[in-house]
Amino acid sequence: MSNVDLAALDQSLTQAFEAASELYKQRGFQRRVGFGKKPAVVSVDLANAWTRPGNPFTCDQEKMDNEIIPGMQRLLEACRANGHPVIHVTTAYEITDRNAPFTDMGLWHNKIPVDVVDLADKELWAIDSRIAPADGEYTLLKKRASSFHGTELGGILRANGVDTILVTGVTACACVRQTICDGIADGFRTIAVKECIGDRVPGAVAWNLFDIDAKFGDVETVDTCVEYLNTVNKD
Amino acid sequence: MSNVDLAALDQSLTQAFEAASELYKQRGFQRRVGFGKKPAVVSVDLANAWTRPGNPFTCDQEKMDNEIIPGMQRLLEACRANGHPVIHVTTAYEITDRNAPFTDMGLWHNKIPVDVVDLADKELWAIDSRIAPADGEYTLLKKRASSFHGTELGGILRANGVDTILVTGVTACACVRQTICDGIADGFRTIAVKECIGDRVPGAVAWNLFDIDAKFGDVETVDTCVEYLNTVNKD
Amino acid sequence: MSNVDLAALDQSLTQAFEAASELYKQRGFQRRVGFGKKPAVVSVDLANAWTRPGNPFTCDQEKMDNEIIPGMQRLLEACRANGHPVIHVTTAYEITDRNAPFTDMGLWHNKIPVDVVDLADKELWAIDSRIAPADGEYTLLKKRASSFHGTELGGILRANGVDTILVTGVTACACVRQTICDGIADGFRTIAVKECIGDRVPGAVAWNLFDIDAKFGDVETVDTCVEYLNTVNKD
Amino acid sequence: MSNVDLAALDQSLTQAFEAASELYKQRGFQRRVGFGKKPAVVSVDLANAWTRPGNPFTCDQEKMDNEIIPGMQRLLEACRANGHPVIHVTTAYEITDRNAPFTDMGLWHNKIPVDVVDLADKELWAIDSRIAPADGEYTLLKKRASSFHGTELGGILRANGVDTILVTGVTACACVRQTICDGIADGFRTIAVKECIGDRVPGAVAWNLFDIDAKFGDVETVDTCVEYLNTVNKD
Repeated sequence: MSNVDLAALDQSLTQAFEAASELYKQRGFQRRVGFGKKPAVVSVDLANAWTRPGNPFTCDQEKMDNEIIPGMQRLLEACRANGHPVIHVTTAYEITDRNAPFTDMGLWHNKIPVDVVDLADKELWAIDSRIAPADGEYTLLKKRASSFHGTELGGILRANGVDTILVTGVTACACVRQTICDGIADGFRTIAVKECIGDRVPGAVAWNLFDIDAKFGDVETVDTCVEYLNTVNKD
Repeated sequence: MSNVDLAALDQSLTQAFEAASELYKQRGFQRRVGFGKKPAVVSVDLANAWTRPGNPFTCDQEKMDNEIIPGMQRLLEACRANGHPVIHVTTAYEITDRNAPFTDMGLWHNKIPVDVVDLADKELWAIDSRIAPADGEYTLLKKRASSFHGTELGGILRANGVDTILVTGVTACACVRQTICDGIADGFRTIAVKECIGDRVPGAVAWNLFDIDAKFGDVETVDTCVEYLNTVNKD
Repeated sequence: MSNVDLAALDQSLTQAFEAASELYKQRGFQRRVGFGKKPAVVSVDLANAWTRPGNPFTCDQEKMDNEIIPGMQRLLEACRANGHPVIHVTTAYEITDRNAPFTDMGLWHNKIPVDVVDLADKELWAIDSRIAPADGEYTLLKKRASSFHGTELGGILRANGVDTILVTGVTACACVRQTICDGIADGFRTIAVKECIGDRVPGAVAWNLFDIDAKFGDVETVDTCVEYLNTVNKD
Repeated sequence: MSNVDLAALDQSLTQAFEAASELYKQRGFQRRVGFGKKPAVVSVDLANAWTRPGNPFTCDQEKMDNEIIPGMQRLLEACRANGHPVIHVTTAYEITDRNAPFTDMGLWHNKIPVDVVDLADKELWAIDSRIAPADGEYTLLKKRASSFHGTELGGILRANGVDTILVTGVTACACVRQTICDGIADGFRTIAVKECIGDRVPGAVAWNLFDIDAKFGDVETVDTCVEYLNTVNKD
């Protein structure tokens, strides 16, 4: 990758976010949606093609290994100790030949290399073993960026009484952001778990979390989320 | 608004985009979805609350008056000359009391001031008179960020044979981006019309168009789009 | 209408339903979904074009005047006394010229005369004055049979914490049935209010309520529903 | 099953349909949606749990073996000879314990025995070997009655340019009917293939196809559909 002056980028973005926050606060944006009464964790695309090296979809490995996976392990522990549902979302396609007369990739292979995630190669789209689904945790296979679009997610969350989703995973600028935007649109309190959201290009996590917190969901730390998962609906 | 060093922000973002583009190209992102055979223009929230001064939703007025509206006028002219459909999208709510026991604002009023756009005050959500809908052009009333989510848009575009949508309007980081992401997810070739997309905070147009072009739709100029509208399906 | 031996039809259907119920019960169908904790009434197409004489959509007037409207009045009274939400659903179209190059009727005008319900003629699609919406009750404008398909309904019900919908209106074989089937699919406990569901052709109410009760929602009387609305969530 | 006088039922229904058709025709219902330019076959739940004996979902075996499967074989042959897409739809669930704290059955197990179709038992939900998917034909796993609701179907049909769906399978009163109603709502020309639609209780095929033909899709014979598949888009 070309040299990016990450310190200068960070400084510029921080300055831009401060100015925007000032305007947003005057105008009544950046309100808090808050935590509800029945949470679920929705973990997006933390499957090997995204979490491990060597794939076009591989994300920033340092953040993955040092923040996202350890943060997810803490969230999973809190969910499992308290009986909160976890939905592990992944992405794969039955027909990955870009010249096929019919394909479940839709038009998306014309923008990004979804053709590399073949359903027949389970290793690619299996959830990372460090955060492997436990018994009773649901694995959802999606075809688009959003975990809600063209899937059963909205219906099954509602049927199970969930009113709050804590969203984690990759990438900030695609599947995580779309899941969060659809989550609040569908009537769920949506929380973006700060340290557990990654990407693969500089700046993308920062600007997407900024947009999300301003308009679509609250960005909260793993600490806050774990505390919430451990205390909601007790007494 | 606090001082933002816009030149420094621009320079930092440009550098970040270059580095990201290098990685994206190596990995097979930033492909072209291309123009299809039957287009429609989907113009998002170019209604008075967004296009005129004095509302919490008011956008960057300089860009609105000098680029977005003139660009839209050129697109409308090309659509009307060639019989291409135009969908004017706007947003308003029947029940804007945030304490009401039931409201069509859903949970969104907990993040942004949607409570100011009351359906009873038509002036607020009427399409800007400079680009007023002509006879036969459809006005769609939405409740969420995406023009597709919880609306009839996908179904009527398909029923009318549309395969390509040229998306314009505000804001880049919310309703425009969501419309574009849902557009390609729903199987439409989605094009973001560069000069016709605005926002209200510094940097937001730049980073959202960058993410969009990398993963969800092609960012194209008004010139290119007008040329396409004037020539598609003519021998 | 041609002569129909209604007694013979009723007898044949009763016999068929009994045989089917026997098989269904052996196989584990016809279970009860039951009432939940937070109800709303969803009243489908009880607007003048359907409830009053003289329109292609006019339904069976005897049932309308003697059962559906009086039953709805009782349900409304119970909702209003207890603060339960009511959603009044109606249907109308912006572009009703069947030869228009673009229309919000989609393909449906190729099956049924939706072209007669023009949005510009408010009298047609206004809710019947005998059950007129009270302040705070939501009126939802739909384009398709289902009150959920391509509308904000699912999202706003969930955002408002509703888990149970009592469905009324017309017609049994189209908009009511579709609303009920989508309701349970979206995760809501769906109840068909027996006396408050009508149609315009002989047998249609009977066979559609039979299918619904077997597979999609519980058919319950107005009495049972009023009792539920008056007692739910009261210690 | 109790004795049903099938001849009397048939006679009563025929009489009712004639009276209804008279009213429908006067009122402008029962129009023709017609065949479009790019078809796909959508075959619903012709998987072993439905097509073979011994399961709660088993359908009328005589109709299955003598009409539905042979008809489907003719449709498949015509699709394969002409390169038309076929989507084989089936239904199964990851979490079939009705007492589990979270399940992808949603609320539907409270009406019908979906808990018997476990995703882990592939034999149950595999497409019947007599009409096994060929290479390039898509298998879609759904959770609800409709093949469109909460699935990728609408998006991928549109992305692949399909404008017409020929729907087959079981059952008439649930998954087939819901797929057809959603199909036209989503903007596809929907055709119900008469001989290829079954159920498991007397009368249900008849009254559901009647309702469908009146309002949602054209009921056409296998002969007509095969002729269409063999000739569409050939000069």
